[in-house]
Amino acid sequence: MSEHYLGIDLGGTNIKTGVMDPAGRVCSKLSVPTEAKHGPDDGIDRMCRAGRDAVEQAGLEMDRIRAIGIGSPGPLNHKQGTVSPANMPGWQDVPLRDRIGRHFDLPTTLENDGNVAAWGEFWVGAGRDADSLVMFTLGTGIGGGIVVGGSFIRGFFDNGAEVGHMIIDPRGRMCNCGQRGCFEAHASAAHTANMATEAVQAGRRSSLKDVLDCGESITTERIVEHMQAGDELAREVWHDACKAIAIGTINLSHIINPELVVLFGGMVYAADLLLDPVNEYYKSLRSAIFADNYARIVPAELGNDAGFIGAAGAAKLRAERGELD
Amino acid sequence: MSEHYLGIDLGGTNIKTGVMDPAGRVCSKLSVPTEAKHGPDDGIDRMCRAGRDAVEQAGLEMDRIRAIGIGSPGPLNHKQGTVSPANMPGWQDVPLRDRIGRHFDLPTTLENDGNVAAWGEFWVGAGRDADSLVMFTLGTGIGGGIVVGGSFIRGFFDNGAEVGHMIIDPRGRMCNCGQRGCFEAHASAAHTANMATEAVQAGRRSSLKDVLDCGESITTERIVEHMQAGDELAREVWHDACKAIAIGTINLSHIINPELVVLFGGMVYAADLLLDPVNEYYKSLRSAIFADNYARIVPAELGNDAGFIGAAGAAKLRAERGELD
Repeated sequence: MSEHYLGIDLGGTNIKTGVMDPAGRVCSKLSVPTEAKHGPDDGIDRMCRAGRDAVEQAGLEMDRIRAIGIGSPGPLNHKQGTVSPANMPGWQDVPLRDRIGRHFDLPTTLENDGNVAAWGEFWVGAGRDADSLVMFTLGTGIGGGIVVGGSFIRGFFDNGAEVGHMIIDPRGRMCNCGQRGCFEAHASAAHTANMATEAVQAGRRSSLKDVLDCGESITTERIVEHMQAGDELAREVWHDACKAIAIGTINLSHIINPELVVLFGGMVYAADLLLDPVNEYYKSLRSAIFADNYARIVPAELGNDAGFIGAAGAAKLRAERGELD
Repeated sequence: MSEHYLGIDLGGTNIKTGVMDPAGRVCSKLSVPTEAKHGPDDGIDRMCRAGRDAVEQAGLEMDRIRAIGIGSPGPLNHKQGTVSPANMPGWQDVPLRDRIGRHFDLPTTLENDGNVAAWGEFWVGAGRDADSLVMFTLGTGIGGGIVVGGSFIRGFFDNGAEVGHMIIDPRGRMCNCGQRGCFEAHASAAHTANMATEAVQAGRRSSLKDVLDCGESITTERIVEHMQAGDELAREVWHDACKAIAIGTINLSHIINPELVVLFGGMVYAADLLLDPVNEYYKSLRSAIFADNYARIVPAELGNDAGFIGAAGAAKLRAERGELD
């Protein structure tokens, strides 16, 4: 009986894949380099081989797999099943869904990487007992996923849950996307590091200057270290990011009003150093009239596995709804 | 055969009610004053009488009504079926759903007024051919509704689609809700009028001073008149509101990514005077990387009927899903 699902999560650096049983248990998982620079044909071959290896590693024959779910960075075109990941030059309108579906001769669904990660956390992670959730993936940029009403929000133009590009400060920082004041421009790991670097370069006194003087780059890890050692600029920049995350959370709490906001990404591993100030700003900035009707903020639980788990989960969702036949 | 639906839209000033046939045609409609000051018992009596009159006016016996939908200002508690409208003193935890359901002995659903208005526009109004929409109701405050995946977003805490309270400028104006920089504090009719009044009172030169000198209040209607007559402050304040509406639209386009953003409220009746600058800011402020994957902005079509129409439509939706039995 074919009741298992294969998830394949395409990233700019790695392809993560694994097999999930219908109860949401991981039967196998593995990771291989994407080598995106070798182009999409090579990349698709790698995805197929990794997928096949994951099925074998799970001790299953291919006929036990009911459907395949793929997660990919956007932009993607859901109707056509194509992807053009912004961070993978040369990958333009790649027909990922049909190429992989044909290779395995299995029903295949293609979804945005933020949505599959959110769906993974909803299925078996931090949100497994929740009614609904919004996920923020705090990395170089800020992505996200929205799970509500038992499904995720794909968007009419396939650009749903791009929470990183809501404007939270029209006089704020310029975002890579071309908008001023995006959530991402105020809270992503890359922009937080940039804020510190710019301040040091502008002559602001800070122990972070030593990092630049050694020819290294300022990262959020360095910012956290220097903040803990008492550096004021590091503290300020970190708190500005926490405040922006709180504002993003307030906004999604008003718009979606989910049970949970799940935070994921390198910055979250600073754990209480991030969650405590975020929660403080979250409580002090928000409105009293909505009382406690705000989402609870929790860290993600599945780490980098959320993508392939959620991709497999999205295949299960769509297969059970008869949308993949 | 009971296949018609009765919608009752409770407002601070009027109760609007009507009967809809299953194809979405208005069979009857009428409006009576709420007289909220007489308290909830009197108000519920008025709702029941108005509902009964609407059924009679439609030429139907009560057994032709399959279910009732109620729209109410929030906050409301969906599980308990109670409402505590912020603008109706003395109405606290009023069991609207069960009182009205028992009166008519019919399955009854209770939804937020913003959501029923959005659902009305989706069912038979500006969004009748659309995949999904977000509605902004631009009045004294800013409310909203979100329709996606064939349903509306109620929120885990029953506060979904409170778009007016997303923060769009953390250094911006104080909102009545206690947050700084809410969308509502920068774009609602009341706040737009306040901005002009404050500027005049602070000594800013403007023909709007004549309005205050005559002992009248500055309203958005006055602002539009004076802008058309060439007053610079009026133009500035109006454009600030249009810019805020554009930012709100950009944000919802990134988060929900609906096909349409539907604008409703007194300000929209200034038609092109509102929609043209909003669209200009919408195009100039947004990101190029998402190309044309932004919602189209359209004016609402149902006016003040959207509420009872959508309330009836919500009853239909829930009855057909077997959620009201």
